[in-house]
Amino acid sequence: MATLAITDGRVLLPDATVTRADVLIDQDAGEILEVGDDLSGAGDETLDAANALVTPGFVNGHCHVAMTLLRGYADDKTLDAWLQEDIWPAEAELTPEDVHAGAELGLLEMIKSGTTAFADMYFEVPEIADAVETAGLRARLGHGVVTVAADDEAAREDAQTSIDVARDLDGMADGRISTAFMPHSLTTVGEEYLDEFVPKAREAGVPVHYHANETADEVAPIVEEHGMRPLAYAAEKGMLESEDFVAHGVHVDESEISLLAEAGTSVIHCPASNMKLASGMAPVQRMLDAGVSVGLGTDGAASNNDLSLLDEARDAAMIGKLAAEDASAVSAESVSELLTHATADAIGIDTGRLEVGAPADLAVIDLEKPHLTPAHDLVSHLAYAVAAADVRHTICDGQVLMRDREVTTLDEDAVRERAHEHATALIDRAEA
Amino acid sequence: MATLAITDGRVLLPDATVTRADVLIDQDAGEILEVGDDLSGAGDETLDAANALVTPGFVNGHCHVAMTLLRGYADDKTLDAWLQEDIWPAEAELTPEDVHAGAELGLLEMIKSGTTAFADMYFEVPEIADAVETAGLRARLGHGVVTVAADDEAAREDAQTSIDVARDLDGMADGRISTAFMPHSLTTVGEEYLDEFVPKAREAGVPVHYHANETADEVAPIVEEHGMRPLAYAAEKGMLESEDFVAHGVHVDESEISLLAEAGTSVIHCPASNMKLASGMAPVQRMLDAGVSVGLGTDGAASNNDLSLLDEARDAAMIGKLAAEDASAVSAESVSELLTHATADAIGIDTGRLEVGAPADLAVIDLEKPHLTPAHDLVSHLAYAVAAADVRHTICDGQVLMRDREVTTLDEDAVRERAHEHATALIDRAEA
Repeated sequence: MATLAITDGRVLLPDATVTRADVLIDQDAGEILEVGDDLSGAGDETLDAANALVTPGFVNGHCHVAMTLLRGYADDKTLDAWLQEDIWPAEAELTPEDVHAGAELGLLEMIKSGTTAFADMYFEVPEIADAVETAGLRARLGHGVVTVAADDEAAREDAQTSIDVARDLDGMADGRISTAFMPHSLTTVGEEYLDEFVPKAREAGVPVHYHANETADEVAPIVEEHGMRPLAYAAEKGMLESEDFVAHGVHVDESEISLLAEAGTSVIHCPASNMKLASGMAPVQRMLDAGVSVGLGTDGAASNNDLSLLDEARDAAMIGKLAAEDASAVSAESVSELLTHATADAIGIDTGRLEVGAPADLAVIDLEKPHLTPAHDLVSHLAYAVAAADVRHTICDGQVLMRDREVTTLDEDAVRERAHEHATALIDRAEA
Repeated sequence: MATLAITDGRVLLPDATVTRADVLIDQDAGEILEVGDDLSGAGDETLDAANALVTPGFVNGHCHVAMTLLRGYADDKTLDAWLQEDIWPAEAELTPEDVHAGAELGLLEMIKSGTTAFADMYFEVPEIADAVETAGLRARLGHGVVTVAADDEAAREDAQTSIDVARDLDGMADGRISTAFMPHSLTTVGEEYLDEFVPKAREAGVPVHYHANETADEVAPIVEEHGMRPLAYAAEKGMLESEDFVAHGVHVDESEISLLAEAGTSVIHCPASNMKLASGMAPVQRMLDAGVSVGLGTDGAASNNDLSLLDEARDAAMIGKLAAEDASAVSAESVSELLTHATADAIGIDTGRLEVGAPADLAVIDLEKPHLTPAHDLVSHLAYAVAAADVRHTICDGQVLMRDREVTTLDEDAVRERAHEHATALIDRAEA
């Protein structure tokens, strides 16, 4: 058994408290063996965590990782104009190789900011799965289905692809990859396809993940067509099970909050995207108070514009207070949970807890920084002051993915260069 | 004449465009000599800016720099409870040495995040001025006056201190330090003291800087007592001159926006603080459209919780869109101006423009990062993706304050250690 010891750190426990402890990891099993003062042995390898905070690896509950290729390509536009004028025309030109290059760049960025698990909706999913296998993270992946502009044959093929991908890739990379059926949203996928394919997702035993209640513009057509709020419609379509998770949930009313709480369906809050696209403020504290399972996600890099969950944590605390008109809302403690086990639970990946027997997914954060001095409260620092560049080591499934800021599973320069080339060529094609 | 050349970079021009150019600096005069492809000579020293963005040094329009000692000490509380239960009791224990230690820590953080000029309101201002002189930045400093809880003698003494400090320190550090008269706010300083001391500020030839319209709770008492909106009251007290600048301006109505535009008084927008304390969303795009001079500030580290203006830039773009309900509001271009010359103009410090003859205050930002790849739009990156740790070099008044992340004017470890000790002892005294 190969072991890894992380020594002399301060560790973030699942109850949002911090204590001094060493951590011993079984690298073969990818599991935390011991947490405490007095490890039973030294590790085969040791990572020094003196003056560092050891946390569970962060969990990004909603992403389109290959969209890193479009980072900064089109900003300061409304969701509708942004999608129709810029993003969809560019995405129509994406090749499998582009998606692979964009995914590698996003995975590199995640590792460098301490993220070890994520959920992702996109196209050319086998390319993304291949990149995840190499990079060493955990992921729940799915093919995004859009039927609105397609004829029936193309629409059914697209939906079937999402089912096939979910079935075929589930359990890949020694179980680090899981999947979901991912209809894009309640307005971009026709009712007949939901009726046909959601049951197939259940047969395949995978959850359903989709965008819901992101903008006010998206709510009205559903109310008009179906005579009910979007999440009531989702429940009727069988898409509000306890393993399902929706992205955004900005414009949810009290009846929908109750539905979510009763069903156990999770909401992935994406504050940066909601601010950047002026979509609105999700009622996060109200959802938490009602017992809704809430997670945190970056959305794609084109509406963020980075994939650091630490930025998202700060954003969640900040906008959560504004939405609640209460400075005590979405506290640092809540945010430390959103960064870790709350989001892991929301997307159904077993991670996010630093405790014996849990998967060995960890981030080690350097506290010897001016902006992290003094150290009155490390949970506060995690929510409000820690930045991506403060992450010193990243560990997933017992493997060291980044050691002293050097990523071990990807060649940083080569990944950046490849992404740059693919992004430039993609835009040239899209604008030709 | 000692010269410094910054070569092969992409430079941010005052019109928010980016071009490839070298920059030549006269270090003795602290001035930019040349910007272009073909410098007349090599510099005595050269900083390589290949794959880097060269910007004006960032300008922080409102800060309480020594409050770094209270970073993370009390979070998730309303402004009123936070001030009365935590901040003011701790500040009552501050010694001059504490303020010096806290200021050094804040200045270190500013240099490491590319900030070269700031405005600051606090106590023990000669300590702050001393730290600024050593650190090498530019600053407009002032003593904050609070009279509400004081007897008349103490109140008059406090206000006179603010005038004396403004008069005595103006022009210090070879002109890098300027000053202002700084009554804390329109509700915490009695009318009689404004009547007596604002004219003294005019005699001394310094601007007036104060908090205004930060929370809804602060507006109502002024309307009730004086029968007019706070900024109309400020105008009546002679505190709305073109050189004056107010912090926050969250709860301003149309009449006050017109008053600000006509008077030429600047508003320093502090989005992180306004979110963290749930104060509200300033109507930044409406103010810009009305012709109000708007700047950007971090406020103190205790309500932020860092002093990187880059975080503030992203926050300003994000919350500006939400406030306007328009994703095109507070664009990346606007934010690049808020980071630099717009805020410099607002606080009356000559800096913030990368052009021949301007003060040589610059930041050099490393673009070879995953989260800054690809490079479709560097102004977008500056607004949405660049982080403090990406700043490679910081130059102020022609002097290199940070070279390859190493601060030259302050001993980073010693400053952090000192701040930690003072912060710990301060809290021990405050809670005794």
